[in-house]
This record gives sequence, C-alpha cells and structure tokens, in this order.
Amino acid sequence: MSDSRIILGVDPGTTIMGFGIIEVKGTKLSCLQLNELKLSKYESHYVRLGHIYSRTAELIETYKPDEMALEAPFFGKNVQSMLKLGRAQGVAIAAGIAHDLQIFEYSPRKIKMAITGSGNASKEQVAKMLQQLTGLKSLPKNLDATDGLAAAVCHYFNPAQQSEKSYSGWSSFVKQQEHRVKK
Amino acid sequence: MSDSRIILGVDPGTTIMGFGIIEVKGTKLSCLQLNELKLSKYESHYVRLGHIYSRTAELIETYKPDEMALEAPFFGKNVQSMLKLGRAQGVAIAAGIAHDLQIFEYSPRKIKMAITGSGNASKEQVAKMLQQLTGLKSLPKNLDATDGLAAAVCHYFNPAQQSEKSYSGWSSFVKQQEHRVKK
Repeated sequence: MSDSRIILGVDPGTTIMGFGIIEVKGTKLSCLQLNELKLSKYESHYVRLGHIYSRTAELIETYKPDEMALEAPFFGKNVQSMLKLGRAQGVAIAAGIAHDLQIFEYSPRKIKMAITGSGNASKEQVAKMLQQLTGLKSLPKNLDATDGLAAAVCHYFNPAQQSEKSYSGWSSFVKQQEHRVKK
Repeated sequence: MSDSRIILGVDPGTTIMGFGIIEVKGTKLSCLQLNELKLSKYESHYVRLGHIYSRTAELIETYKPDEMALEAPFFGKNVQSMLKLGRAQGVAIAAGIAHDLQIFEYSPRKIKMAITGSGNASKEQVAKMLQQLTGLKSLPKNLDATDGLAAAVCHYFNPAQQSEKSYSGWSSFVKQQEHRVKK
C-alpha cells in the first residue's frame, strides 16, 4: 500500500469548473492544484464540454489521482439549466470512467458540513478553513475555484462507504460481472 | 474524399440507450447496426453511465463513424430527471469528444419531421419509414431501439449547417484557437 493518496476534486458547471488536487500523507494534507477553468468565454456549449473533458483528463493523466470527488448539486432553477449541468457533470464523470477512476459525489451542503461543521457556511468560511487545512499561502480572487478543492477535502474526511453515491471504477465492475459475460 | 459516409446515431437515456449506425453511399442508405443497451437492470447510476460511455466508445472504435447524431430532448418532467438525462447525454458526448468526432443534436420533434414529414408521427410510423429507407428486413420488438437509428437518418437528411446544434470536433477547435495559445 502506498503511503500517500491523491484526490482530485472537481465542481463542473456550465460557466466555470473549479478543480483542486490534494495529497494526503498520514494526516497531513497538501494542495497540489487549485484553479478554475473559465467557460463563459466560449459561446458553444459543446466547446465548453470539450474543455471540461480535456482538462479533467489532463489533470488525471498528470497527477494520477487515486480517487475523484465531485461537487454535485441535486437541485436547480429549471429543467433547462439542470440538463446543461448534467451534461457538464457527465463529461467530467466520463473522463474519470475513461481513466478507470473511483468517483464519489457530494452535495454542496455535505461539503460545507464536512469542512466547517455547518451546512450553511459561506464561501469565505469554507475557503478560510481550506487554507488552514491544506497550508495554502493565499486564496484565489474568485472563490468559486475553491469548490473543487473543497470536494476533494470533503472526500478525505468521508470514508468511501459513507459517501452519498460512489462509483467503484469500471474495470472492477466488469470484473464483478465476469460470470455474466458469454464466452 | 471517401465515397461512403458512416453516421452513428444515439439516444442516451437513464434506462435505455438506443443506437444505430448507417452507411451512406451516394443516395443509398444501409443499416449497419440497430440495437439498444438496457440500463434499468443496473441499480447504480454510475454503472449505467459507465455502460453508456464504454458502449458508445466501442461503437466508434468498431465502425469508425464520420459523424455522431444525438437525439436530445430539451424538456422533461422535473429537474432531477433532467440532471440524470444530462449526465447520460454528457458521457455519450464525451465518448464522441474523446474520439474527436463531429457531434450534432436534434430534438425528437425534428427527427420525426425529417423522417416522416410530421413532427407528431408515432414511433410505429417512424420505424416503418426507417425500415423502408435503410432496407431493414425486420424491426426490433422494442421500438425504443430505433431512436438512435432515427437520429442518424435525420442527420443524413439535414446538411450540417442546418442542424440545431453542432460540435465540429475537438482537434479542429484547438486548431482554430492556436493563435490564442501561449508558446
């Protein structure tokens, strides 16, 4: 067993994707990446999806995370915006599936709760706690960028079996199903 | 320029994905694939997404289509179901993006219109027309399977520039943006 564990956290949306990567050594957390992908400058919805897919895939190939945590709101304004949000989440999830990564998802409320102890904490409160927990020297101007990092830290605090929903990796699923495959 | 063109059509949903592949030679259409992926037997939403991704990727690798057409409803019952539908569409779209495929999407109404001349045609009417157009000997029991094939045939009838939404392939987009890339 490796003594360090890397977690990729993403918060894919239609106008911005926040992402962060943490490394866990024992009980020490450090932040390897904290950034945002600005999507609003691209008019085409497909080009935005392309960016989400390729950036997520690139992060996985570069940092080789052990697990992926997703911030996933379950409610939204209307069916149109939820369809678009679902697509954005879908392409990020697909990048994880294509790299056979374990995927876990958490609601915004659960993430705030795990990090600050309150499901109603402000973005600033979450960011301050993240800074303390991962030893970040400074915070980004746009705090939306911290949502991905927050998902990764939330996952660290939540053992796999307690996560709201999870996906155990495609190849392990296929292995479990081997007896059902015609030979 | 090749004298034949292959179009993959998919209708990704949360319980079933219909898919079909047509080959176009001159004005002659033939059906290379017409089938459905049953997803309702898998409890996990992630396992369903995994199946959509891997089957779509497998179809692209096997048949090497030139374009991909997606049946994409824009309305749904509620935000929850639209988020799930968006995710299903998202992973299918990601399989296309990962293989640098051109993607086009059409609403169910536009597909019915293109094939039968009426936006309110029944599934049976659409299926009968598809049978005639592609020379299919028999139709599947579950007509949902024909929705993917219908999207492919609709795309054949609609020149690219008339499609509702389209995605011109990731590498061509990156090429267009090359001047914006820092070197």
